Amino acid sequence: MPPARRLQGVRSSPVRDLLALTLRPEVISFAGGLPAPELFDVDGWGDAFAKAVGDRRNLQYGPTEGDPVLRALIATRMTDRGVPTAENDLLITTGSQQALTLVATTMLEPGDVVAVEEPTYLAALQCFQIAGARVVPVASDDDGMVPSALAEVLERDHPTLVYVIPTFANPSGRTQPPQRRKEIARLVADHDTWLVEDDPYGELRYDGSRVPPLASYGERVLYLGSLSKIGAPGLRLGWLRAPKDLMPVAVVAKQATDLHTSTIDQAAAAVYLSNTDLDAHVAGLRAAYRARRDTMLTALPATVPPGTTWTNPEGGMFVWLRLPGEVDATDVLREALKHNVAFVPGAPFFATTPDHATFRMSFTTNPPEDITEGMRRLARAFDEFATQDSLEV
Amino acid sequence: MPPARRLQGVRSSPVRDLLALTLRPEVISFAGGLPAPELFDVDGWGDAFAKAVGDRRNLQYGPTEGDPVLRALIATRMTDRGVPTAENDLLITTGSQQALTLVATTMLEPGDVVAVEEPTYLAALQCFQIAGARVVPVASDDDGMVPSALAEVLERDHPTLVYVIPTFANPSGRTQPPQRRKEIARLVADHDTWLVEDDPYGELRYDGSRVPPLASYGERVLYLGSLSKIGAPGLRLGWLRAPKDLMPVAVVAKQATDLHTSTIDQAAAAVYLSNTDLDAHVAGLRAAYRARRDTMLTALPATVPPGTTWTNPEGGMFVWLRLPGEVDATDVLREALKHNVAFVPGAPFFATTPDHATFRMSFTTNPPEDITEGMRRLARAFDEFATQDSLEV
Repeated sequence: MPPARRLQGVRSSPVRDLLALTLRPEVISFAGGLPAPELFDVDGWGDAFAKAVGDRRNLQYGPTEGDPVLRALIATRMTDRGVPTAENDLLITTGSQQALTLVATTMLEPGDVVAVEEPTYLAALQCFQIAGARVVPVASDDDGMVPSALAEVLERDHPTLVYVIPTFANPSGRTQPPQRRKEIARLVADHDTWLVEDDPYGELRYDGSRVPPLASYGERVLYLGSLSKIGAPGLRLGWLRAPKDLMPVAVVAKQATDLHTSTIDQAAAAVYLSNTDLDAHVAGLRAAYRARRDTMLTALPATVPPGTTWTNPEGGMFVWLRLPGEVDATDVLREALKHNVAFVPGAPFFATTPDHATFRMSFTTNPPEDITEGMRRLARAFDEFATQDSLEV
Repeated sequence: MPPARRLQGVRSSPVRDLLALTLRPEVISFAGGLPAPELFDVDGWGDAFAKAVGDRRNLQYGPTEGDPVLRALIATRMTDRGVPTAENDLLITTGSQQALTLVATTMLEPGDVVAVEEPTYLAALQCFQIAGARVVPVASDDDGMVPSALAEVLERDHPTLVYVIPTFANPSGRTQPPQRRKEIARLVADHDTWLVEDDPYGELRYDGSRVPPLASYGERVLYLGSLSKIGAPGLRLGWLRAPKDLMPVAVVAKQATDLHTSTIDQAAAAVYLSNTDLDAHVAGLRAAYRARRDTMLTALPATVPPGTTWTNPEGGMFVWLRLPGEVDATDVLREALKHNVAFVPGAPFFATTPDHATFRMSFTTNPPEDITEGMRRLARAFDEFATQDSLEV
């Protein structure tokens, strides 16, 4: 028996095979959305785990909602960031990816519509597809999702959810300015639907001034948070902030999904957040990542073909690029891999009609010197590709 | 907007409020299916986490399929238990509960039928309900699911999955003998459907001789394993063993669900399984749990009303009981809580028509002296209940 019909379109893309090649140690990869491992606070986490595992209660089953101490600490952190939050507004999840899955499980029936900015996070697209939803793209510009385009989709398609990454989006790196957040929150409220705000990168700002989360602009927001980018992704710790009416159902869905998130990882995170100055650690990450972003952006004009366009992210992890003309970025990736450098083709980030000339580059994973070397390799790959391409013409 | 229609029947049961009361420290609870915390190998896990967290790669994102070292160790353990298994046959999951959810996501369309033994694990029922499946009960006797009853359901309802806990079942404590496993595996193969074998308790045998997992009797088995009962449940580590055709889709579903299970917990478990004699630890658990089971079973005749029946589990965690007549076990639980002792009413373990006179008692969580005291309290609660009951008549 084959898997369920719904799943048959959800198989890995052919790009997955290429991406496996980016893991070869000789490849400088701008493909994965990975934090810099050398910036992990190994000592801090070592102390936190030593303390957590010394208490045998942290090896036992725990409450589905999550560790109460961790929930309280995160509630305080969210409140400090402009989103008043109580412990009971939060459900700890196995990474914010699981928070998204729980939202899909809790809110969507097969056939329901989800509106997304375009391009958007590809694992969110998979998640909605697995839930049997129909995904409708909403046009974006340099300020993210365009309100007039959203209004049209709201009128025409009656989405159950509107999914956005409003701050340093994956893959585009774009950020919605405050005025746009206000408009989007109002539109969604007027149409009696729900925003899903996915915010894993919000604390990683390198320029400009902080914009409060979308959740501070309205009530109809399901907020997904994460420790992966400011703490460590290996712990798989995220959270869902949801209105009181939805929380009991989300908790039952969580219980059926994995009973609860790792007790020991939650306890370690609670110790870590209590004992560490996370803001100081994040300030260090920001300084390091700012330098990496600048290294990449500075090298770009001499690397990519004339006519290539790209975003100028004020934070986060990603630059989003478009090659001129009708080039397929997957073909360029094949050439790049021969030069031991990699990026992600942009096509899988589109809900419906992909723009094959787009691609995404992450600037956080590699130190500046490796970024510089990787950009040199990429320049050679583009040269080689252009030569072949013109030969073929 | 309310949650999805599919979810509206999945809200917590009223029993949940009562069960919250069982967490009061003065209550001796036979309700939860918790391992004994004083038997956790805190030193072994402490060493394992110290080693794992010292390697910064264990704080990073990891492969969706799971830690390769852990997969290889579990594959060897399964092979040793009679189910030949390669690393690539396994997907590490966030507890075996998640393996079940992934099976549901991968295999079920809304409206599909799942056949289950009756009674069965209530979180499995929730999981199938959330997937939109129709759950059809199959009669069980003292040897578990009855083959002739299964044959009838296979003919009539064409289930996509047949879910069983063949060894020391939750809640019944029953075990399918080898001959019955053979018959069930053949029936399922003949009808071109799939068995889901949930096996969290299989290693916890106290009497009689070992029965190989159902997965050793046929190919059409999705096997769910867990470290929760032999290691520590707080790590939330389980696995799915699935045929090659289904694995790629299960991996995509896992990726969409939580990307992967905690890197650090997987690495710690790999260290632990490499450095510890788990068989010796499990032998210790078996000796301790055997004594607890015997304490409970010995006390039962003097505790429960005449005419009560119960199972005699050869392993696992649970005794399943039925009160004589038309008593509702939830009413008895209310009285029991006044005496600071608790169990779980049986009704939620039924797929369709509950038998309200049933209840489940776990014998693993409490040391023998607490079991003895808890049984004394329970005896007083039954006396009190009987008195009130006769007064009401």
